[in-house]
Amino acid sequence: MENFVFQNPTKILFGRGMEDRVGEETAVYSKNILLHFGGGSIKKTGLYDRVTASLKKAGVSWIELGGVKPNPRLSLVHEGVELVKKHNLGLILAVGGGSVIDSAKAIAMGAVIDHDVWDFYLGNGEPKAALPIGTILTIPAAGSEASTGTVITNEDGWLKRAVNTELIYPRFSILNPEQAFTLPKFQVACGITDIMAHLMERYFTNVPHVAFTDRLLEATMKTLIVHAPLVLEDPKNYDAWAEIMWAGTIAHNNLLNTGRIGDWSSHDIEHEISGIYDVAHGAGLAVVFPAWMKFVYKHDINRFAQWAIRVWNVDMDVFDTERVARTGIERLEAFSRSMGLGTRLSDLGIKGDRIDEMADKCTDKGTRTFGSFVSVDRESVKKILLLAEK
Amino acid sequence: MENFVFQNPTKILFGRGMEDRVGEETAVYSKNILLHFGGGSIKKTGLYDRVTASLKKAGVSWIELGGVKPNPRLSLVHEGVELVKKHNLGLILAVGGGSVIDSAKAIAMGAVIDHDVWDFYLGNGEPKAALPIGTILTIPAAGSEASTGTVITNEDGWLKRAVNTELIYPRFSILNPEQAFTLPKFQVACGITDIMAHLMERYFTNVPHVAFTDRLLEATMKTLIVHAPLVLEDPKNYDAWAEIMWAGTIAHNNLLNTGRIGDWSSHDIEHEISGIYDVAHGAGLAVVFPAWMKFVYKHDINRFAQWAIRVWNVDMDVFDTERVARTGIERLEAFSRSMGLGTRLSDLGIKGDRIDEMADKCTDKGTRTFGSFVSVDRESVKKILLLAEK
Repeated sequence: MENFVFQNPTKILFGRGMEDRVGEETAVYSKNILLHFGGGSIKKTGLYDRVTASLKKAGVSWIELGGVKPNPRLSLVHEGVELVKKHNLGLILAVGGGSVIDSAKAIAMGAVIDHDVWDFYLGNGEPKAALPIGTILTIPAAGSEASTGTVITNEDGWLKRAVNTELIYPRFSILNPEQAFTLPKFQVACGITDIMAHLMERYFTNVPHVAFTDRLLEATMKTLIVHAPLVLEDPKNYDAWAEIMWAGTIAHNNLLNTGRIGDWSSHDIEHEISGIYDVAHGAGLAVVFPAWMKFVYKHDINRFAQWAIRVWNVDMDVFDTERVARTGIERLEAFSRSMGLGTRLSDLGIKGDRIDEMADKCTDKGTRTFGSFVSVDRESVKKILLLAEK
Repeated sequence: MENFVFQNPTKILFGRGMEDRVGEETAVYSKNILLHFGGGSIKKTGLYDRVTASLKKAGVSWIELGGVKPNPRLSLVHEGVELVKKHNLGLILAVGGGSVIDSAKAIAMGAVIDHDVWDFYLGNGEPKAALPIGTILTIPAAGSEASTGTVITNEDGWLKRAVNTELIYPRFSILNPEQAFTLPKFQVACGITDIMAHLMERYFTNVPHVAFTDRLLEATMKTLIVHAPLVLEDPKNYDAWAEIMWAGTIAHNNLLNTGRIGDWSSHDIEHEISGIYDVAHGAGLAVVFPAWMKFVYKHDINRFAQWAIRVWNVDMDVFDTERVARTGIERLEAFSRSMGLGTRLSDLGIKGDRIDEMADKCTDKGTRTFGSFVSVDRESVKKILLLAEK
């Protein structure tokens, strides 16, 4: 186990009716806020009305900025920063999924500086402060509601880049599983895939003696596998959604990587696919992750076998551990397909003709390697993408 | 799943050498503190020297109060409160196990009021504030390093009572598994039993649809079961201690009871045993918990069977679930014995002649019931203690 420092201050308010507490939670920090959301589905579901009623009751006034799209854009972040500065707002309230929350985090960092917040995403300088952020989660997926991360896409060149800093842990996040009832099945499948990916990125590590967090990760993965079919069959299954929603937060709130070093290659590669083709992040991960696994599993067959046995109930075969490991990967693919997702590039409508371009973008034309479990360079990315074609 | 609010702000600094950061972590809150510890073992191990060197380096001065005993006493808490008030100290630094930390929490609450802090333990009034607390943990057991709880014994009548409040979450806790290397085997076994008990108190619940936290609890129990023999065999096994120490914190930091309602009868009954006989808390739990289980398991045989299968690897027998459940309880007893602990009152040298007295004390002479999984009254306590005799 590696040494670590862990502190996650996000206050979680979980369950039915918790949206009605947003006013009082917000007022602790500011009475003059930015209300940030996406395409307007919160107005159809009635969430917008509940949130604004609660804000009013607590004496909180707000400026609105809707229109966040999946793979949230820098241009809207800039708009948000302008609004916050102009009206001297004190908190960004994100009502939506990971894209809205990531956008809110970018605005929170951008509002307290005089230069472009994109600088941080390019690795130029580090944020020193951020406005407080609150969230009301509507999509269990990204885990941004209790994480240190934000991923933004710059339309100028379609660059997708991340910032991680403890400054942007939300102060509070409100999680009501009912908010997930109206999600389209495809989005449900993508969200669950994203959560699984957060767990698998952490699981495949070279750090020895991580038995406890191994088991916590396995427990979380099993929870998703058991409950995914339940919510796909009955989108109003509160109890199953509650398991998935809480699992999605814990998957990404940094507890499950205490003492470990995660890999994150699959996320890096997927970011380039969704950057070029604008596919859903989860749909891309369902394709990239198994391909990455086929490329790396021989690096630590025992770890893959442990995962196959404990997470996928594959029978141990001490005489053929490699087959056990491969069966685990097959079960992951079968799980994705059972949720209606494809597991090959062709399922996303992607032909092989831009593999070189993706490999270039991932690796800054071959000058950058990434991945911790196995280091991945330009040639490796190409091999992984070829495995994703087969 | 029940609605819940969860926020644990304690900053964990985990691993080798982390004690050396105590000065800078302390100085964030105060430069004038109470250094609280137990019987002086920290001077033998060199921990005292490292801590005071770090404090000095950070410009922090301190007043010392050692002498905390297991089942920490109110009289010492009073001494601490006097010292803090007299010298206007700003933080209580607990260096030790759960008893030292619990004592520090009591002092932290008592230092900011004009009446006796024992009032809170009697349920008279609620704390409104507390001084900040920092800890350096030396015994993985009580989980007090990241919990809301403190248990104090009033020597006047040997009453052992608890307070729970978010005000006493430590601001930071330093966990270096090396600190556990010098613990006597008996104390190791008691500590692991205490951690197991924290998990089992949470596990046995009537709240339906708690699948995710079920699995997290099972994961944590399995981690303890696997690593306990390793540290008993080799007390300097850092890697095994790291798993146990982190599991011990997570077991009791309120994450694993999110959405659940725990039972806590076994703790309540054990408190009376250790109050009367001054036995070690863990040793008492190793006796009380299986007896409680034998008394209640028919209330929810499926839950006990799930526990037996997933935690103790008992084979499922769909034709005799009750036998599966009972086998789980037997394996728990075997686990305790494998660590050198007894599982009957007689193993603690306790004869049956004071069972009535214990039942009286537990239930305020029959006027109080407790327990959530199964409600326990005076007669039930007697039955449980009789099962602990067999």
